[in-house]
Amino acid sequence: MSAPTRRQLANAIRFLAADAVQAANSGHPGMPMGMADIAEVLWNDYLRHNPNNPKWFNRDRFVLSNGHGSMLQYALLHLTGYDLPIEELKNFRQLHSKTPGHPESHITPGVETTTGPLGQGFANAVGFALSEKLLAQRYNRPEYQVVDHRTWVFMGDGCMMEGISHEAASLAGTLGLGKLVAFWDDNKISIDGETEGWFTDDTPARFRAYGWHTIGPIDGHDPEAIKAAIDDALEISDRPTLIACRTTIGFGSPAKAGKESSHGSPLGKDEVEATRKALDWPYPAFEIPAQIYDGWRANGTGSFRQGEWEQLFDKYARQFPAESAELVRRSHAELPEDFAIQADAYVAKLQEQGLEIASRKASQNAIETFAALLPELLGGSADLAPSNLTMWKHSVTAVGDDPGANYVHYGVREFGMSAIANGVAQHGGFIPFDATFLTFSDYARNALRMSALMGSHVIHVYTHDSIGLGEDGPTHQPIEQIASLRYIPHNDVWRPCDAVETAASWSAAITRQDGPSCLIFSRQNLKHQPRDKAGVEGIYRGGYVLAEAEGGTPKLILIATGSEVGIASEARDKLQAAGIPTRLVSMPCTNVFDRQDEGYRESVLPRSVRARVAVEAGTTDFWFKYVGLDGAIVGMRGFGESAPAEKLFPFFGFTADHVVEAAQGVIQA
Amino acid sequence: MSAPTRRQLANAIRFLAADAVQAANSGHPGMPMGMADIAEVLWNDYLRHNPNNPKWFNRDRFVLSNGHGSMLQYALLHLTGYDLPIEELKNFRQLHSKTPGHPESHITPGVETTTGPLGQGFANAVGFALSEKLLAQRYNRPEYQVVDHRTWVFMGDGCMMEGISHEAASLAGTLGLGKLVAFWDDNKISIDGETEGWFTDDTPARFRAYGWHTIGPIDGHDPEAIKAAIDDALEISDRPTLIACRTTIGFGSPAKAGKESSHGSPLGKDEVEATRKALDWPYPAFEIPAQIYDGWRANGTGSFRQGEWEQLFDKYARQFPAESAELVRRSHAELPEDFAIQADAYVAKLQEQGLEIASRKASQNAIETFAALLPELLGGSADLAPSNLTMWKHSVTAVGDDPGANYVHYGVREFGMSAIANGVAQHGGFIPFDATFLTFSDYARNALRMSALMGSHVIHVYTHDSIGLGEDGPTHQPIEQIASLRYIPHNDVWRPCDAVETAASWSAAITRQDGPSCLIFSRQNLKHQPRDKAGVEGIYRGGYVLAEAEGGTPKLILIATGSEVGIASEARDKLQAAGIPTRLVSMPCTNVFDRQDEGYRESVLPRSVRARVAVEAGTTDFWFKYVGLDGAIVGMRGFGESAPAEKLFPFFGFTADHVVEAAQGVIQA
Repeated sequence: MSAPTRRQLANAIRFLAADAVQAANSGHPGMPMGMADIAEVLWNDYLRHNPNNPKWFNRDRFVLSNGHGSMLQYALLHLTGYDLPIEELKNFRQLHSKTPGHPESHITPGVETTTGPLGQGFANAVGFALSEKLLAQRYNRPEYQVVDHRTWVFMGDGCMMEGISHEAASLAGTLGLGKLVAFWDDNKISIDGETEGWFTDDTPARFRAYGWHTIGPIDGHDPEAIKAAIDDALEISDRPTLIACRTTIGFGSPAKAGKESSHGSPLGKDEVEATRKALDWPYPAFEIPAQIYDGWRANGTGSFRQGEWEQLFDKYARQFPAESAELVRRSHAELPEDFAIQADAYVAKLQEQGLEIASRKASQNAIETFAALLPELLGGSADLAPSNLTMWKHSVTAVGDDPGANYVHYGVREFGMSAIANGVAQHGGFIPFDATFLTFSDYARNALRMSALMGSHVIHVYTHDSIGLGEDGPTHQPIEQIASLRYIPHNDVWRPCDAVETAASWSAAITRQDGPSCLIFSRQNLKHQPRDKAGVEGIYRGGYVLAEAEGGTPKLILIATGSEVGIASEARDKLQAAGIPTRLVSMPCTNVFDRQDEGYRESVLPRSVRARVAVEAGTTDFWFKYVGLDGAIVGMRGFGESAPAEKLFPFFGFTADHVVEAAQGVIQA
Repeated sequence: MSAPTRRQLANAIRFLAADAVQAANSGHPGMPMGMADIAEVLWNDYLRHNPNNPKWFNRDRFVLSNGHGSMLQYALLHLTGYDLPIEELKNFRQLHSKTPGHPESHITPGVETTTGPLGQGFANAVGFALSEKLLAQRYNRPEYQVVDHRTWVFMGDGCMMEGISHEAASLAGTLGLGKLVAFWDDNKISIDGETEGWFTDDTPARFRAYGWHTIGPIDGHDPEAIKAAIDDALEISDRPTLIACRTTIGFGSPAKAGKESSHGSPLGKDEVEATRKALDWPYPAFEIPAQIYDGWRANGTGSFRQGEWEQLFDKYARQFPAESAELVRRSHAELPEDFAIQADAYVAKLQEQGLEIASRKASQNAIETFAALLPELLGGSADLAPSNLTMWKHSVTAVGDDPGANYVHYGVREFGMSAIANGVAQHGGFIPFDATFLTFSDYARNALRMSALMGSHVIHVYTHDSIGLGEDGPTHQPIEQIASLRYIPHNDVWRPCDAVETAASWSAAITRQDGPSCLIFSRQNLKHQPRDKAGVEGIYRGGYVLAEAEGGTPKLILIATGSEVGIASEARDKLQAAGIPTRLVSMPCTNVFDRQDEGYRESVLPRSVRARVAVEAGTTDFWFKYVGLDGAIVGMRGFGESAPAEKLFPFFGFTADHVVEAAQGVIQA
C-alpha cells in the first residue's frame, strides 16, 4: 500500500463500524459510513486534541449529537491513538466494554459527553462553546490566549427535528458563539424512511434566522469541499457556523446505501463483504493496515500541541499568578480551600438568626454568599429570574464580553438550558446552576436524567414547589415532580424546610462533584426550625431527628419535608400535649438519607416504631417507602386548584389538625 | 355613548383584565392589554363560533397559547355571550371559580384546551387544524363542506422560544395546514425584561423556513392593519399563516406600558385609575356599558351560523347517510355499538391462542384489529414506526389528501407529537395515539401531564420498556419512567405481561374516554400466561390473581408486571415445589387497581399476608406501596448497561432463582 488516500482513511472508519455492528449483531452502521469523509477531514486536518491526554484543558471539544453513530466516534478515538484498543471495538455493545451502544463520557476516554437522546449533544456543544467564550474573556490577556479552543458537533436529521435544536441554536446565535461549528448530516433518511413526508424545513434558512453563519449544502463525501467549508467557518468569529453536508447514509453499501435499512441494523454478512468489494477494501474485519494507522495517529502532534500550550501557560502563570492559579483550580474542579469552613459558618449563622423567609429567598441569600467565594458559579434561569430569585448583586450577563460574566439569561428554554448546563459542567471550569418553576422541570426532564447518568456537577434550582404557588393553578402546581425527580438514579433532590436547610442544601450541591442536585424551594415564607449542632449536622445526612419525642420512646414518628415541616412541627406539639410521645423527622433529601449506613437510618426511623405519618404537598404514594402499610400519608392525590395558597393548604388537608387526625388513626389501628 | 369605536370595544377587554387582576391581587394584565385590539378584530369580524353552544362541531377553534393572559379569553367569552357571567370574572383565580389562573378546558365553557405551559397551546392548535383537515378530506363532498372551520392561535415570545414551537411549526408546514393562523404577540418583553439579550431570532424568517406564509410585522394596535393581515391570511389555503404583530405590553398604562412590570403582577390601584384616564374609560370596575356589550354579543350570529350549518348537514345526511352517521358518532365520541363485544371476543381468542410474542408485536396486532372497527383511530410515532410497531396494514399517511388518512409520521418530535395529539383529542372526532421509546416519554412529559389534567382521550404507546431493549444502553433504557408516569394524576399506565393483557390494555385505553392511557410494551418476546374467564376479567381491574397459592392460604404473594410476570411465575413454581403456598398477582395497571373497591383490593392483596415480593424491571422504590416495610422488591437501583438483554436480566437479578431467594428472605424475616 502506498500512502493512503483520504477515501482510504475514511474507509477505515466505515469498516470498523460495519464490522463491529456485524460482530455485535446490533447497532447503527449507516451514519458512520455516511459521515466518515467529514470526520476524516475534521479530525486529521483541524481538530486540536491530544490522544495521550483526553483531559488536556485547551483541547477542541468534539460532540457526536447523533450518538447512535457511536462507532464513528470509537473508530476515530481508536485510529487517532486514544486508549481504546481494537479489542474494545470487537466488544462493541457488550457488558462492561468501553464501547457501549451510545457514547458515554464516564466510560470511554475522549468522549466529552454522553449522547444518544437526540438533540441534546448539540445543546451540550453550545454549553462547551459558551464555557470557552466565558473563560477566554475572563482569563486571556493580550499575547496569552490560554483558553482558545473550538467546539465541533455532528448532528443528524433527528437532532434537527427535536425542539431542543431550536432552543440551543437560538441562544447560541444570540450569544454569538463564534467558535462553535455544527455539521448537519443531511442524508434525508430517518427511521420511518425518506424524510420528505415529515421534515421539509429549509434548515440553513432556519439557522440564518438565528443569526448563524451557514455554509452549503456541500457534498459531504468530497474532502476538498469539506476543507473549503471548514476554512470558511474559521473565517467567522462573531457567529456560530452550520455546515450543511449532503451525504449518503451507509455510503459504500451496494444494496443499502441511501436507505433506511442501513440505519439501525447490521448490514448483514454478505452485504458487508459486498461493501468491501465496492470500496476496494481487502482487509479482514478489525485489521487496519499500518499505513492507514500512520495516516491517522495523532499522538505526536497532540503531545506537541499540548506542549506548546503548556509553555504559553507557564509564561502566563508567571505574569498573572492569581489568574492562572484560579484557572488551574477551576479546571481541576477544586473548590477553594476554605469553602467548607465558610459554608459551615454561614449555615451556623443562619441557625442563630432564625429568619422566616421563603426558601427561594433563602436560596438567593445563599447564592449571594457562595458566589462571592466561587467565581466558577455560572447562574441562569429560563426567563424566571425575578421569580426563581437566581440573580444576585454581582450577576453579570453572559451576553457581550464582560470578563466577570457569570449569569445566562436562558430565555424560555428549559430543556435547552439544562442540556447547555450539562455541557458547561462537562467542559470544566464552571459549576453551572439553572432554574425554572418546579413543574417545568418536566420540560427539561431528559436533560436532568443525562446530568445524573453522566455524573455532571450541575445544580438545578426549582422554585414554586407545590400548591403553595397558589393562583396560577394546576398547570403550574407540581404534584408528581418531587417524587419523580427522586426516582432518577444518581440524582439528589433537596426540599429544605427553612433558611438553614436551604443553605445546607446549596452547600451539599456545591460539594457533590460527581453528580447533579435538584434544589426545590417554596414561593411562600417558611418558619425557622430550632436545632442544636447535631441537628445542623443531621441536615447533611438527608434526614434527621428535628424534634425528639418527649416523655419516653416515640410512640409515633412524623416525617416531613419543606413547607410541611412547619405543619408537622405544630402537629407534634399538639400530639405531645395529648400525651403521645412524637418524634419529628425532617427529611430534606431522601436520596442522601438512603445512602446512610443502616445504623444511622435505624436511629432515625427505628423498625420498632411503625406508627408513622409522612407529610408532603406532593404525590402521596412516594412515602410508602418510609411509612409502610401501617402508616399514613398526608399528601396530594390529584391535581391542584387555582386559588390563594392560604386557601389551598387547608383545602387539601395540610393543617396540623389533619396531621393529628391522621396520626391518631395510625395509632389506633 | 354613541356607537362604540373599535378601540372602545378593545378597552372593555383591557379593563376587565386589569380590574380582575387587581381584584384577585394576582395575574397577568399586560398581555390582555397588549393583544386586545387583535382579539377584538378577530372575534368580532372573523371568528365563526356560537356562544350558545360552545360544543358546536363546526365552530372555529381559538387557542390562547400564552395562557397566562387568561383574562383576555375570559373577557372575550363573557363579552360575546358565553355562559360566563361577570360574577365569575370578579372571582378570577378564586377556589372553584370558572376563571382559574390559566384557561382550563374542563372548567370554562368556550375554552378549547388548557394552556399555560408555554408553547403547548400552539402545538394543540396544530392538532386542531390537523383534525379539521383530515375530517374534511374524509367526509366533505362537493357542495357539502360540512367540516370547514379555522384554528386561530395567539402566541407570545415565550411560546416562540420554547422548542415545541419548532416541532409543531415544522410539522404544520410539512402538512400544509392552510386553515391555521397564528398571531405572534411580538412585544419584545419577557419576565427577565427586554428580550434583546436572549431572543434575537428573525421569527418570520424561521417560519418561512418551515414553509409557512408570513405576514408582518404589523401594528398590532391598528384594526385596519389587523384586518388586512387576516384577509391576506384567508387568501392562502395551502400553508399555515403567521401574523407577526408588534404590540405594547400593558397598552394604555401610563407608567407600565411596554415594561415587564405590567406582565405578571397587578398594575396597582392607582395605575389602573391612571390607565382609565389615559384611555378615557370612565366606567367603574366590572361595569360594561350596554352599547359595548351590544358591539360584542355574538349569540345571534352564532345561532344563525350554526343553524345554516345544520341545514347543510341535514341535506348532507340525506344524501350520504353512512358518512353522516359515522361523523355524528365520532363527533359525539361514541364508540361503535358492538365495540365492547368485539374487543372481548378478540381478547378471549388470544387467551385461547396463547401466542408467545413481544408485547409491542401484540400491540400491533391489537391495533390491526381495533383500527378495523374504529375509523377514528389516528395513529402515529415519533419516527419509530418500525420499532414501536405502530403502523398496520391499512395505515394511510396524513401527508396529502387521502380520505383514508389515519397515520401521522410525526418525525423526531416527541413533545410536539403528544401536544398535537392532545389537540386532536380536544378537537373531537378522533382517538389519537402516539408512540416513542419509553425513555423518550421524558421529552414529552409535560404534554402527558396536560393530557391527564384536561382528561383528554389520548393513548400514549411506549415500547422498549426496560433493560430488555438491550444494547442501546442506559441512555435508552427506562428505569424511573414507569413509576413516574404512574404518579401523574389521572393517568392510567398499563404494562401488560402477554398478548392477552396487551389487547385488554388497548381495549381499556380505547374505552377510557375521560383521560389518557400510557401503554407500555416490551421489545422482547413474552410468555403466554394461562387464565380462566375470571382471570381475563381481572385484567380490567388493573391487578388480579393470576395463579392462586396451592395447598392452603398463601404464605407469600408475588406481584409482577410486564416481562417480569414470566419470571415471577417461574419463581412461584419453584416456591410451590418447595412447599410454600404462593399466590402470583399480575398488576398490569396499578392506577386502575387503586380505583377498585376495598373489598376487591383486599381479595387480591389480603392485609394478613405481609410476606410479599414485587418484581419489576424499573424503579424499586415504587413498590413499597404494595409490599410495605416487610416485603422485598426485585427492581432496578441504578441505570442500566449496554449489553444483550439476555445478559442484562440475570446481571440485574431478574431471574426466578433471585426472586425465590428474595422470597425466602421475606418469609424468614
